[in-house]
Amino acid sequence: MFYTIDILGTIAFAISGVLVALSKKMDPFGILIIAFVTAVGGGTLRDILIGDTPVSWMKNLTFTYVIIGSSVFAILFKSKIDYLRTSLFLFDTIGIGLYTVVGVEKGISAGLHPIICIALGTMSACFGGVIRDILCNEIPVIFRKEIYATACILGGLSYFLIKKLPIDNNVVFIISGLVVIATRLIAVRFKISLPSLYKED
Amino acid sequence: MFYTIDILGTIAFAISGVLVALSKKMDPFGILIIAFVTAVGGGTLRDILIGDTPVSWMKNLTFTYVIIGSSVFAILFKSKIDYLRTSLFLFDTIGIGLYTVVGVEKGISAGLHPIICIALGTMSACFGGVIRDILCNEIPVIFRKEIYATACILGGLSYFLIKKLPIDNNVVFIISGLVVIATRLIAVRFKISLPSLYKED
Amino acid sequence: MFYTIDILGTIAFAISGVLVALSKKMDPFGILIIAFVTAVGGGTLRDILIGDTPVSWMKNLTFTYVIIGSSVFAILFKSKIDYLRTSLFLFDTIGIGLYTVVGVEKGISAGLHPIICIALGTMSACFGGVIRDILCNEIPVIFRKEIYATACILGGLSYFLIKKLPIDNNVVFIISGLVVIATRLIAVRFKISLPSLYKED
Repeated sequence: MFYTIDILGTIAFAISGVLVALSKKMDPFGILIIAFVTAVGGGTLRDILIGDTPVSWMKNLTFTYVIIGSSVFAILFKSKIDYLRTSLFLFDTIGIGLYTVVGVEKGISAGLHPIICIALGTMSACFGGVIRDILCNEIPVIFRKEIYATACILGGLSYFLIKKLPIDNNVVFIISGLVVIATRLIAVRFKISLPSLYKED
Repeated sequence: MFYTIDILGTIAFAISGVLVALSKKMDPFGILIIAFVTAVGGGTLRDILIGDTPVSWMKNLTFTYVIIGSSVFAILFKSKIDYLRTSLFLFDTIGIGLYTVVGVEKGISAGLHPIICIALGTMSACFGGVIRDILCNEIPVIFRKEIYATACILGGLSYFLIKKLPIDNNVVFIISGLVVIATRLIAVRFKISLPSLYKED
Repeated sequence: MFYTIDILGTIAFAISGVLVALSKKMDPFGILIIAFVTAVGGGTLRDILIGDTPVSWMKNLTFTYVIIGSSVFAILFKSKIDYLRTSLFLFDTIGIGLYTVVGVEKGISAGLHPIICIALGTMSACFGGVIRDILCNEIPVIFRKEIYATACILGGLSYFLIKKLPIDNNVVFIISGLVVIATRLIAVRFKISLPSLYKED
């Protein structure tokens, strides 16, 4: 279960990394590196913070193969890049949903408090994109626009609420992942965003 | 002792993070994240480098509560932001003083050499601000202006010098923290800075 | 063997850090910090990812002395900075050659798969420069220009190919380091670079 989900999230994030790197005119290896850090950055931070080393992607080659495969795919189909805008958004949204819940569950097995687990899940989901934006010299998009980390936090909260019900763990996993995805889709569809606290004058 | 001090430093850094994030027009969760990384960034780096995981803030919820509380406080009083400029500076200065000494003592308990302990203390104190500036897409202020890391290094040196005297450990802690704070206050008051080594032509 | 090589790479990277920091008008401690992170950043990431903590430079003071010494040297001779351009390039190239192979060998002793070892070597070699560029608020040069990471990957591949031959481990080490160095020198000499995948329109 975990396994397949990690792979799907990895594909989603790798492709999102390739597309940003392409727009920055990077060379193929630059693109691959951005794809790689976008895909594994969040999980790597998660593993380092809880002391689970060597980090996941070093112990399981599948991640590396999937990232290289997705990157080559994304590079080959770059001319269709405008069609991919929507897919990119969907991939990314599915990715953060999956990573949030995986992060939450890793926190639980490390014996951490629910609040910390939610923070860990949110970081797992968002940090890959943050590091992608830092490497591309931009203020990370998640700090400025759209419901993004908010969706992850809501998903993490749902996880602990739903878990109290007498239902299967896999169902808890899926529902809370869907909460993240639904929150983001609804927010973007209806242009809902957190109010900026900054006043122009 | 340690405990209260860590909390004070956390408040100081969280508020400094909120103020910078506000000036970048971030949304509430962006602000919270910047507050969080500013507050725990240095301690997290310290813990990761010496292998003390899960990192401090994951094992002790107080940090999280304090950061959320301080952020809400800072956001509510944002209209008084100009009055807060001086307080921000003072908070930040107290913060680096406290974090430097906590970092030095953590290095000592990990059995590291005094020079490395001083480096660890300086990093604990400065890294939160560095990561805050990176996330906000600016060259970290500590590399360009004012006596900042220098104050931490002097404080760390004092720690090991004073420790040789026959006085209580808490006194050593306080005095070396005050050395950091005094150095920075004096430097800013009298506009002392390290000479730039760069010549215009 | 390892020891001397780590030192040489450290000198190379520290000086490259000083030169970039000088061009950003940083103060002496800013310069020292940039020199430090450029020199130890890659090795630190390597050690953290495989869980070998406290990280190398904390356990062995030589790195710190060498970095401070090299930085002072580079600052003193800054007026000769134009003469140093070529040396900087050579130092940097030797540095990535050495760090790549050290990283690969650390990966092998951590029991990791060859592909992961190559990635670890490449990160060890490149991450110091990446973090230097991030701290100086630039898109890391390795993602945009020249054969750089590519040279490290080729060197890592050579390591595992040559290792199959019945020759001494030190020779394997030297040859694969030279592959990195030669690849980069040839690429720069003949202005070879990876094709950009971005089309202007």
